[in-house]
Parts: sequence; C-alpha cells; structure tokens
Amino acid sequence: MEAVCGAARAGLLRTPHGAVETPTFMPVGTKGAVKGLSPRDLAEIGAGIVLGNTYHLYLRPGAEVVREAGGLHEFTGWSGPMLTDSGGYQVFSLARIRRLSEEGVRFTSVYDGSVHAFTPELAVRVQEALGADVAMVLDECPPAEADRAYHVSSLRRTARWAARCKKAHSRPDQALFGIVQGGLYPDLREESLRRTLELDFDGYAVGGLSVGEPRERMLEILSLLTPRLPEDRPRYFMGIGDPVGILEVIALGVDMFDCVLPTRLARHGTALTSEGRLNLKNARYRRDFGPLDPGCPCEACAGFSRAYLAHLLRENELLGHRLVSLHNVRFVTELCRSARREILAGTYAAWMRGWISRYTAARSG
Amino acid sequence: MEAVCGAARAGLLRTPHGAVETPTFMPVGTKGAVKGLSPRDLAEIGAGIVLGNTYHLYLRPGAEVVREAGGLHEFTGWSGPMLTDSGGYQVFSLARIRRLSEEGVRFTSVYDGSVHAFTPELAVRVQEALGADVAMVLDECPPAEADRAYHVSSLRRTARWAARCKKAHSRPDQALFGIVQGGLYPDLREESLRRTLELDFDGYAVGGLSVGEPRERMLEILSLLTPRLPEDRPRYFMGIGDPVGILEVIALGVDMFDCVLPTRLARHGTALTSEGRLNLKNARYRRDFGPLDPGCPCEACAGFSRAYLAHLLRENELLGHRLVSLHNVRFVTELCRSARREILAGTYAAWMRGWISRYTAARSG
Ligand SMILES: [Zn+2]
Ligand SMILES: [Zn+2]
Repeated sequence: MEAVCGAARAGLLRTPHGAVETPTFMPVGTKGAVKGLSPRDLAEIGAGIVLGNTYHLYLRPGAEVVREAGGLHEFTGWSGPMLTDSGGYQVFSLARIRRLSEEGVRFTSVYDGSVHAFTPELAVRVQEALGADVAMVLDECPPAEADRAYHVSSLRRTARWAARCKKAHSRPDQALFGIVQGGLYPDLREESLRRTLELDFDGYAVGGLSVGEPRERMLEILSLLTPRLPEDRPRYFMGIGDPVGILEVIALGVDMFDCVLPTRLARHGTALTSEGRLNLKNARYRRDFGPLDPGCPCEACAGFSRAYLAHLLRENELLGHRLVSLHNVRFVTELCRSARREILAGTYAAWMRGWISRYTAARSG
Repeated sequence: MEAVCGAARAGLLRTPHGAVETPTFMPVGTKGAVKGLSPRDLAEIGAGIVLGNTYHLYLRPGAEVVREAGGLHEFTGWSGPMLTDSGGYQVFSLARIRRLSEEGVRFTSVYDGSVHAFTPELAVRVQEALGADVAMVLDECPPAEADRAYHVSSLRRTARWAARCKKAHSRPDQALFGIVQGGLYPDLREESLRRTLELDFDGYAVGGLSVGEPRERMLEILSLLTPRLPEDRPRYFMGIGDPVGILEVIALGVDMFDCVLPTRLARHGTALTSEGRLNLKNARYRRDFGPLDPGCPCEACAGFSRAYLAHLLRENELLGHRLVSLHNVRFVTELCRSARREILAGTYAAWMRGWISRYTAARSG
C-alpha cells in the first residue's frame, strides 16, 4: 500500500509478470482475447491486468491445450499480469445446472450441452494449468431469488470449498484469492468474511454484488466488508465496469475490478467519454466530424471522427467494434490512473464528486 | 514504366497521395474500411492503394457526408492513394434492377429497398465528392447468361457512357480510368478496347472477367488486350485476389488488381501462406503451436500460434478475423513486391513457375 485517502487506496500488486498500480480495471478476455483487442492494443492503452474466464477456456480450447502452449500468457500473447476466475460464476449463470452437491457442481456446456463436473480441486487444477498470476477459489454465486436459508448453506459450502481450494493449490508462483459471499444480508456477509479470512488468502474478492440490486444496497454491503479486510492484501470487487460505480467502489477501498461492460457497450455502439455516454448510432453523430473524445490520444480518437465511427458501427464493421472497444477500455483504465493520482495527492473524495457530477450532467445520449 | 520482363511490367503510379510501386494489389474497403483493418494496419503491411466502393458509400453514409468530412481520405483516415469503383458492378450484381436505359440505371438499395438512379454523370459526380485519386467510368457488367447480341449492345452503351463520364469529369487532381468489356468474345473485346482507347483515359481497366469462366479463357481474353493497351498508362484487372491468379495476370502485363478474397477467406478461417492455403478450422491446428506463416513478420505471425488463431476463429472472435485478415492482405501485398523484384531482375517467368508449383504442391488444407 502506498497511500490511503479516506478509505480509498493506492497500491502496487506484484506478480511474476510485473507489478500493477492499483486501483486497476481488469479488461475481460472471455475466451482468451479481450473482444476485438490484441495484446499490443492492451499494452498501448496501459492495461494492467487481464482477466481470463476459466469456464470458457476449460471448454474451449481446453486447459490441456493452453497448458501445452505454455500457459495462458504464452497462448494469448499477453505477457503482463493475468487473473483467472474459477469458472463458478459462468457455471451458475450460463449452465443448466444438473446437480450441486458438497462435492462440487455438474453442469452442461453452453457450447454443446456436454456434461461436466467442477470441484474445488478441479477448478484449482485447471487454473494452475492455465497459469495466470492470480487464481480464484470456486464459489457459488446464489441465484437472485435465493432466500436467507439458501444463502446460509451456500456461503458455508463456499467456505468449505475455499478450504479445499487452498489445500489443492500447489503453484507457489500463483496467488490464490478467497471470495466473500452472503447476498444482501449484513450478518451473513460478516460470517462469510470471517470464514474466508480464517483461511488466510493472498487476496480477497467480494462476489455476488452488482448483480441487479440497487446501487445503494451494494455500496452499503461493501462498506461493511472493506474495513475488516487486511490492509496488506489486494481487494477485488467482482463485476463492475461503469465509470461511476468504479469510482464509488474505489472510494470504499477496492483495488481491482473487472467487467465486460466497456467492450460490450462498444459493440452496441456506445462510447464512454468525458462528455458522458454517447450512443453513436444516434442520428446526431452522422455529421459530427469532431473526435470521439477530445483530449483522448487513443487510436480511435486520434485518427477518426465521430461520424466515421458512427458509420462503421451502423454498418456493423469489425473496425468500428475494435476502435470503440479500444477507446472504452482505455477510458476506464485512464479513469483508474486519475483516481490513483488523486489518492496519492490526498484529494480523492472531492475530485470524485466533481468528476461524477460532470460525467452525469453531460450524459447526452 | 521502370522495367518490362516478358509482358510483365514494373512501374510507378503517381497520385496526389503518393506514388505506388506496381504491380500492386488493392485491398477493398467496401464500406469505407477494409474489413477489420485500420489505416495503421494497412500502412504497416505496406498496402499501396486502397479501393472504396462507390455503391456502398453512396448509400451509406452518403456521398454528401463524405464530402463534408473532406473526402474519403479524411473520412477514413487512410492518407495513401485510393481508387473508387463506379458503383456499376454492385448495381448490376446486388440490386434487383428496375430499369436499364440509355440514360442510366435505376436500382433498389441492398440496404432498405429504396429506389435510386445512377447515370454516368452521377457516378462521376459522386466519385468526385468522394475524392479518391482514381475514379472509374460507369460500365455495365453483363449478366453471366447474356448472349452475344446482348454483349454487343451493352459494350456500345458502356462506350457511350464512358464518353459521358469523361465529359462530366472535372477534377484535375483525380485520374479517370476507362473499362473494357465484351464478355468472352475476342472480337467484341477488340471493339470495346478500340472504343475505350479512342476516349483517351488516364488508365485502362479490364472488367467482366474472373466472374466464373474457366481460368484459361480469362487469361486468353486478357492476353488479347494487354499488348494493345498504351505502355505509359496503368492497367487494372478488376476482381482477382488468389495468389496464382495474381501472378498470372501480372505475367500478361497487368499493374493493378483488387479483390475481397483475402479478407473474406480470413473471416471464414482460411489463411494464405507460403505453405499454401490453410483452413485453420481443421482439427490438425488445435495443437499446432508454430507460427501461422514462418518468416512472415506480421502481427498475426509474430505474436501468436496457429493453435491460438484457430481457437479465435472457431469462437468467432473479432481478434481472429482481424489478425488473419491482416496476414492475408500482407501475404498478397508481399507477393506483388516479390513479383516486382523479379521483374526488375528480369527473372519473372521462371520465378513465377517455381512459386506456383511450390504453393500448389504445399496446399495442405
Ligand atoms: Zn479514445
Ligand atoms: Zn503473417
């Protein structure tokens, strides 16, 4: 940890593939590639750590292929830090679940309906084969309609799975993070936190939030947890990617977060800019020959006009998806760099309020 | 013209946006972008001259938008030489034709079914608004089932249209090329050639070939025409992009050619390499961790394995389409550079025979 400003933290995450300044946004390389972007693109926009989805990579091309290639870094050409999730989130959100038991979870592949089983031990073994710098324990992210009783038994099973993951984990060059669950119940979150902390992980993630609940509830639960996490371990909030949300979780002391939002928005024609969100398919941009985001030096902003990008997106051209994805990921990455500067300067809270009010006021569509 | 080797020519095409060494392959930017590639990508692979499709740009985003942007160079960010076709090929191949008359052609838009009319004068006016370095006359590319009588009246109308195009053309900074038609009838080709030459264009194109006829017939017709074209004007063969075909038309004295093949093949998972065409979706590449084309320094070959590219293509990832497109366009571009070297060295014919026999023998699938 280098500096603290209120609860917000500026730190350094050291990995075998380099150090990452935090807070940091992790672009998601779902299937071994951040949609539309090459490792060179990611390096140019200053991305720090890239996330890979174990669920997808396990099914396609298969962990064995990646291991034979020399690991995910070698396979994808990204030589910077990487984190893999455990696959749990996709198993529970994408798959028709066959059976959840103490042992693990059986599920059908979203690709071809074939049946697979994940156990805590397998999730660790697969992630060790993938070889990212940070691996995650296998957790259950309970369904939205789950009641309190479900959450109690789920978080306790998740804690037992976490202990099995820790026991199974054998790569000393790979960090393993635990995950706190417990839904929107403060006491269950505290129980999950206590059980996870007992296991002494290299870092701690908060899961099961930002899944549809009101933003205030999310922040309320998060604010109960972050003060009780050890100061010297990285904190990862799973699944947030909108600029305002990013700043809010940073304010509560989060170091890392990931989301597909910046690239998904880009493919649907929406750019994140200093003037707010722009829907480039809006007719007003057809003859807007100015840059996408004045002041942004990325390839999309430096080389093209809003009118051209809008044309490419309307015509569903690959180049448009790539350029706006590049810009959006850079925008969020740069936002984290600005946040870090303000934390180091001790001015984070006031800066954040000003930034959010400008961004939301400008939101023009 | 710098050198001639047999009928093959090495030359220099001077344009307001720079000189292009010929023979040269023109990547096709159908809708104002070569599918998946940015101007920076094109510059890095050494692309010489990029083609824009007037038909598509006229309908979307509209010639007025491009003109307001400052022309196609400014709009697309490609600052090198550009050529626009007249739109005729797409009008006749894509559109349900409403009416072909002496005046011009009415057609329905492939986008929304709206009705439009192209005349020779409009095709020139639109291309002047787009502002490419080279414009083409509006010609009719007769349907495959057209008989001799149809070709006779069509080539004569095309010649009258060419005269009207020449008369309408007013931009001194833009070259205008005529187009020779006449199907597979040697005497009609000669008539079309004579009528086109009479109009004295800045360059001459051969159209209506490589549209499904046997390759030998195509080369036979072409070989009747090239010896009668003026030596000091560029010669453009419309619509060829396979490596063997490119070398064969170069051998007959062609300087420029265009095709969507290299980028279209890439999106379907096929790479053009020194080992022949590779279908990367073939199971044999799942664990092939070698480079796509050993010796090729492009981003796809230098940074990734066949196994990774195959994975991306199977998963329909944008990055896969971009990387293999980049490689394929570079491969064809580099092939033209090699051809030029051999022409300058006076060794083209022997080199071409060797190259084709290696390429086709290696074709492994
Ligand atoms: Zn930008
Ligand atoms: Zn290559």
